[in-house]
Amino acid sequence: MTDRMTRDDLDELEQRYRANLINSLSGFKSAALLGSSDGKTNNLAIISSVVHVGANPPLLGMIMRPHTVQRDSLDNIKQQGYYTLNHVHTDWIDKAHQTSARYEQNESEFDAVGLTPFFSDGLPAPYVKESEVKIGLKVAQHFTLLNKTEMVIGEIQEVIFDKHALHKDGYLDIEALSTASISGLDSYHKSQRLAQFAYAKPHVKLDRKKTS
Amino acid sequence: MTDRMTRDDLDELEQRYRANLINSLSGFKSAALLGSSDGKTNNLAIISSVVHVGANPPLLGMIMRPHTVQRDSLDNIKQQGYYTLNHVHTDWIDKAHQTSARYEQNESEFDAVGLTPFFSDGLPAPYVKESEVKIGLKVAQHFTLLNKTEMVIGEIQEVIFDKHALHKDGYLDIEALSTASISGLDSYHKSQRLAQFAYAKPHVKLDRKKTS
Repeated sequence: MTDRMTRDDLDELEQRYRANLINSLSGFKSAALLGSSDGKTNNLAIISSVVHVGANPPLLGMIMRPHTVQRDSLDNIKQQGYYTLNHVHTDWIDKAHQTSARYEQNESEFDAVGLTPFFSDGLPAPYVKESEVKIGLKVAQHFTLLNKTEMVIGEIQEVIFDKHALHKDGYLDIEALSTASISGLDSYHKSQRLAQFAYAKPHVKLDRKKTS
Repeated sequence: MTDRMTRDDLDELEQRYRANLINSLSGFKSAALLGSSDGKTNNLAIISSVVHVGANPPLLGMIMRPHTVQRDSLDNIKQQGYYTLNHVHTDWIDKAHQTSARYEQNESEFDAVGLTPFFSDGLPAPYVKESEVKIGLKVAQHFTLLNKTEMVIGEIQEVIFDKHALHKDGYLDIEALSTASISGLDSYHKSQRLAQFAYAKPHVKLDRKKTS
C-alpha cells in the first residue's frame, strides 16, 4: 500500500512525530562529530547535516540550529573561526549519540561520553582522537536561512586519515574505515558496498569501476 | 599508519583525484533522483547533496552546480518553481547513476535509463514511479554560495511512500524501503541498522529505542 501525505496532512502531525518523519525523508546522512572550543571547554556535538559544497577550494557545509543543544558549538565556531568534523566509527555510535544530551556549557562532552580530544598544530579546535577521518576547517561563509537555522561553510585546512584506505583515484574508502550513517534523528547504520561505477556516458553501457 | 594532509597537499593534487578525495570526506550521502520538467522534456538527475533544513515548515536543501550536467535541472527548477526528490532503491542504482551522463537537453533521462515518470495532481514536476519514497517540493529559497554553486531550499508539498514502513513515532524506515546511499562520487551502498537510540540525557545511560 503506497500512500500519499499532503502538506496539510504533514502540518496536522504532532510535533515530535513530524520531526521524526521529515528527518527520515532526507535519506541516509553522514554521522559526524563537530569539535569546537571556547578556549577552556572542548565541545563535541553529533551532526548529520554535513554536505559537500566544493572540491577546489575544498568546502563542506552544515546546517546548525541556534536555539538547541548545538548553540554552544555555534558560539564557539563564531568566536574562534575554526572547528573539526570527525567521522563517527560504527564501534562507538552510542558515545556519539550521547553528545546530543544537554550538558552544561562548562562541561566537556568529550569527558562526559568518553572520547579523547586531540590537537594538531594546524588548528585550535579539538579533534576526536578515536575518529578514523578527522577534518579541520576554517569558517569561510556563514548565513541564516529562511527558517532561522544557520548554514556554516568551512574551508578544509587539513585532513587526517589512514592512507591505506585511499584508492588510486583519490576515493577514500570510508566503508573500510567503518564510518557510520544516520537516518531520521536517532537510527545508526553501517554500510555494505553494492557497486562503484565508472564515469557515465550517454548511450554507452555503464561499467563498474576498476579500483585498487 | 594514520597520516595528515595539509591544505597545501590538497591544493597540489590532480583535479580529478582531489574531487574524489574531497567528495569522500562528507561521509555517506543520500542517493536521490531529482525530477524536473521544462513543460516538454522530463529531466532526471542523480543528486547526493540533499540536506535536512527543518521540519516545521518541512524544508530540504540541496547544492547544485550550474555549469555541469545539473544545469538543465536547475533551469527547470527556476522556471517552474517545482521539483521532486525520489529515493534511489538499491535494485536500480545503475539506472540512477546513468542519469549523470551528459544527455542532450531535449532527451529525457527517464527514457534513456529506463525509469518511469509519474505525475500526481499535487505538482507539475515528474516523480520516479519506481521510487519507494517520493517527495514533491516547491522552491522556497535560492541563493549562490561563495564558490558559485547554488543552494536550493524547497518546501515539501507532498510525500508518497508505503505506510507500512512508518514506525509509531513517525520515523520512516528507509532501510526497510531499500534506500541507497552514496560515498565519494560513484560508490553506492546498502545499509544495515546497528541501533536506534532513545533521547539522550546528561549522566543517564543511553537506552535503545523501543520502536514498532
